[in-house]
Amino acid sequence: MSMHYGRAHHPKAPAGYIHDDMTKAEIKERESSLVPLTDSVRRLVDAVVRTQVPDSVLDDVRTRVETLAEELLADALPGPHGVRFGPDGGFRNYGNPVVGKGNAFAPPLAVQRDGEDVWAEFELGPAYEGPPGLVHGGVSALILDQLLGEAASAGGRPGMTGTLTIVYKQGTPLGPLCGEARIESTEGVKAVVRGRLLTRPADGSDPAVCVEAEGIFILPRWAREAMAAADREHVGDA
Amino acid sequence: MSMHYGRAHHPKAPAGYIHDDMTKAEIKERESSLVPLTDSVRRLVDAVVRTQVPDSVLDDVRTRVETLAEELLADALPGPHGVRFGPDGGFRNYGNPVVGKGNAFAPPLAVQRDGEDVWAEFELGPAYEGPPGLVHGGVSALILDQLLGEAASAGGRPGMTGTLTIVYKQGTPLGPLCGEARIESTEGVKAVVRGRLLTRPADGSDPAVCVEAEGIFILPRWAREAMAAADREHVGDA
Repeated sequence: MSMHYGRAHHPKAPAGYIHDDMTKAEIKERESSLVPLTDSVRRLVDAVVRTQVPDSVLDDVRTRVETLAEELLADALPGPHGVRFGPDGGFRNYGNPVVGKGNAFAPPLAVQRDGEDVWAEFELGPAYEGPPGLVHGGVSALILDQLLGEAASAGGRPGMTGTLTIVYKQGTPLGPLCGEARIESTEGVKAVVRGRLLTRPADGSDPAVCVEAEGIFILPRWAREAMAAADREHVGDA
Repeated sequence: MSMHYGRAHHPKAPAGYIHDDMTKAEIKERESSLVPLTDSVRRLVDAVVRTQVPDSVLDDVRTRVETLAEELLADALPGPHGVRFGPDGGFRNYGNPVVGKGNAFAPPLAVQRDGEDVWAEFELGPAYEGPPGLVHGGVSALILDQLLGEAASAGGRPGMTGTLTIVYKQGTPLGPLCGEARIESTEGVKAVVRGRLLTRPADGSDPAVCVEAEGIFILPRWAREAMAAADREHVGDA
């Protein structure tokens, strides 16, 4: 199951969500160095895909990349970054491959919210290619899984992805794209979320719908218990 | 639609599949430098996710990464790598985010084939994390899309992914995993392919099925025409 973190800062949230002492101000300071570094590594990933320089240059660059990795690993978490919350509500999931600010593969998506609607504008380059010139179908699924999960959370229904269905309507061109998602319906512990990926034409012409997705999200036990407790409190207030 | 390249070297294959003059021997030579470089960049991506070094080190590393990217881009393809075929059957899709030998995000999967069965053993680290300690659900979808597409090709039914359905059975732990896929049935231009991701326990205990997938692949026109022509030739031979 794919767990989205919506209300994971709740005391009944499952283990693995880390609470630490990094304030929002400290996070902002850290990210002013981390994000540009991640951007530069993203450019390096792209350069390796496209480079045509002689083998000897590849070998030389490799040696220097290894040195850089060692310098960063001189002090590093022993395992995955995890999902972290600070004391004043700062939130970090730097390893997330769609939105993680420390993950050079993540485009990264900056997901916007307006009520129950979530969306993101982003650009996918050569490291996301499947068929020639087109986005890998699995990358579309990866991005939609994240967007649908964020829509479930935005609609107050954080949960585990039970089933994800992706319908490919037409090839998705590499370049500027837009994704959007929103809860369609809820029934008991289930929420049905729909989303899609569209082109974002530079000339202002109508966007084309390339991929559609439907996800069924199951509200986890800790969230159900928290909501039931809130209901009881509310009844007590009345 | 997500196009898999199965028979794309066929003369009727769609545009965008590039034929060049790189022989298998030249490809092997190139990859003896490219693959270790990609591995080192993959370690760098992982290091950026996990690093705890001071901001000043991040800034210094960033500057040097930028220099390396510039050196690689001194001679580079202007756009995506595409899917390339050499004169003696060598095949390259270096940018593919699941199997590309030049893509530092690709685990990469080395997909094995035995008749119509395809499978791969691989390991997913911190750059693939969604929920704490678990593989991002969308990464599972990304990998399964690739495996199902390769199974469609292995079964002689290359095509576009029409619909991909992913069922999450339980959280997929980061670490060693196995994926497998195979065509289940065909009807007209449609092929139904099934696959799954399993754990790969180090202690030899039974693997757990974490994710199941079903994909419906549609045979493209060029492949249908090629198959019809082959049938006519076969009738002519009889």
